[in-house]
Amino acid sequence: MILLTNDDGFTAPGLRAVWDALSLETEAIIVAPETEQSAVGHAITLANPLKIKEMKEDGRLLGYAVTGTPADCVKIAVTELLPEPPKLVISGVNQGSNMGSCVIYSGTVSAATEAAIMGVPSIAVSLDSWDDRDFSVAAEFVRTFYPSVLKNGLPEGVALNVNVPALPRDAIKGVMVTRQGISRVIEKFDKRVDPRNHTYYWLAGELTFSDTHGGTDCEAVEEGYISITPIHCDLTRKDFLDPLRSWDISF
Amino acid sequence: MILLTNDDGFTAPGLRAVWDALSLETEAIIVAPETEQSAVGHAITLANPLKIKEMKEDGRLLGYAVTGTPADCVKIAVTELLPEPPKLVISGVNQGSNMGSCVIYSGTVSAATEAAIMGVPSIAVSLDSWDDRDFSVAAEFVRTFYPSVLKNGLPEGVALNVNVPALPRDAIKGVMVTRQGISRVIEKFDKRVDPRNHTYYWLAGELTFSDTHGGTDCEAVEEGYISITPIHCDLTRKDFLDPLRSWDISF
Repeated sequence: MILLTNDDGFTAPGLRAVWDALSLETEAIIVAPETEQSAVGHAITLANPLKIKEMKEDGRLLGYAVTGTPADCVKIAVTELLPEPPKLVISGVNQGSNMGSCVIYSGTVSAATEAAIMGVPSIAVSLDSWDDRDFSVAAEFVRTFYPSVLKNGLPEGVALNVNVPALPRDAIKGVMVTRQGISRVIEKFDKRVDPRNHTYYWLAGELTFSDTHGGTDCEAVEEGYISITPIHCDLTRKDFLDPLRSWDISF
Repeated sequence: MILLTNDDGFTAPGLRAVWDALSLETEAIIVAPETEQSAVGHAITLANPLKIKEMKEDGRLLGYAVTGTPADCVKIAVTELLPEPPKLVISGVNQGSNMGSCVIYSGTVSAATEAAIMGVPSIAVSLDSWDDRDFSVAAEFVRTFYPSVLKNGLPEGVALNVNVPALPRDAIKGVMVTRQGISRVIEKFDKRVDPRNHTYYWLAGELTFSDTHGGTDCEAVEEGYISITPIHCDLTRKDFLDPLRSWDISF
């Protein structure tokens, strides 16, 4: 059984595209947030309970909508809702890329890393467009790619972060294995005044990529390739361990 | 100016302990979530505006309470609220450790990595106890340690994740530079029935550490040392790039 999830919510078209591509040829089930959860990062719900809604279509079970985050969905699907652990988790297709440093804000990616922590192979998939709603090419890539993941397996704790250019099928140049680039949102807050004369702020800002050393996710997608970045949740900056040990730290 | 923040909320005693330790000897300001934001991961608030409350004590400005996440607080402090960019961000002291894989769920740590992305040196500090509310030793460590960070600087994109054992000052064995260990919460959901006869689930579960290769944060703290792990937000699993390239992937 393959578990499908996302952070755009149970009814999002990107998730539906994967369901349509996969559910005819393999056993799939959706466990996804009831409402949009974009930019929730790797949040889990501790302070509130989770409620579950069974979702059917024409009498057929599609899966479950959960009042929680993508990581919550993976946890409760694997632990409570599915009759057996899934052999694969697919998160997405997300509306909007998840590349560079922005990966850490991504609910889509957090579902995949949560699965990896739980020992289930996983793929996060995102479409590099905030408005193009044609997810068919990305979903078709998932359909051709997921058997490789099942066949080859993934090391413990590793997930795959896939980003697909928003291009027609025949304009995609191929697939590239990449590393995560460096990006930053140059923050800008819109400062506004509410009807009761209180100031409030709304986060705006522009995404910039600043890594030009070659082989990054953002470069590959920019050039028309599908990027696949193997990721894990070890944040250690290894090449700074020794320099830090040379500091004079005592207590 | 040093920016203090956390994920336990503006009035949390762990944050207050750092304020008390630092504000007499340096210029400090607090920009922290109005309410507790534990386990929010690296969430940012896009769908809602942020409201800001000025917080004073005996006529003196302590800082600002924000209706958002720790990452939101850092973004809006640096971009809007402070007269100049802070020279350092300190997040914590958190009630409860942030070690091993669980770091990715941590709002405390996300404030520090957000600062790192914005080019500001930062330290996340957590106390290894869920109930011991004596943050004085951790705060005292911060007071003695932060000048080293200012003096030596940190590479771009790097933050320091500090975990302090819940021990009396003289029982702390020293400081150890560590890497992030591997941990997992063995999930258990409490299944309950609400007064209207609907089922709901509440996340429980037990934290386990499974990394025994030496040099990890969890081992150091267990042995009575303060652990310092340099972290960044590059999730790439570098040693799996070449194996993945050997897969037969085409599209």
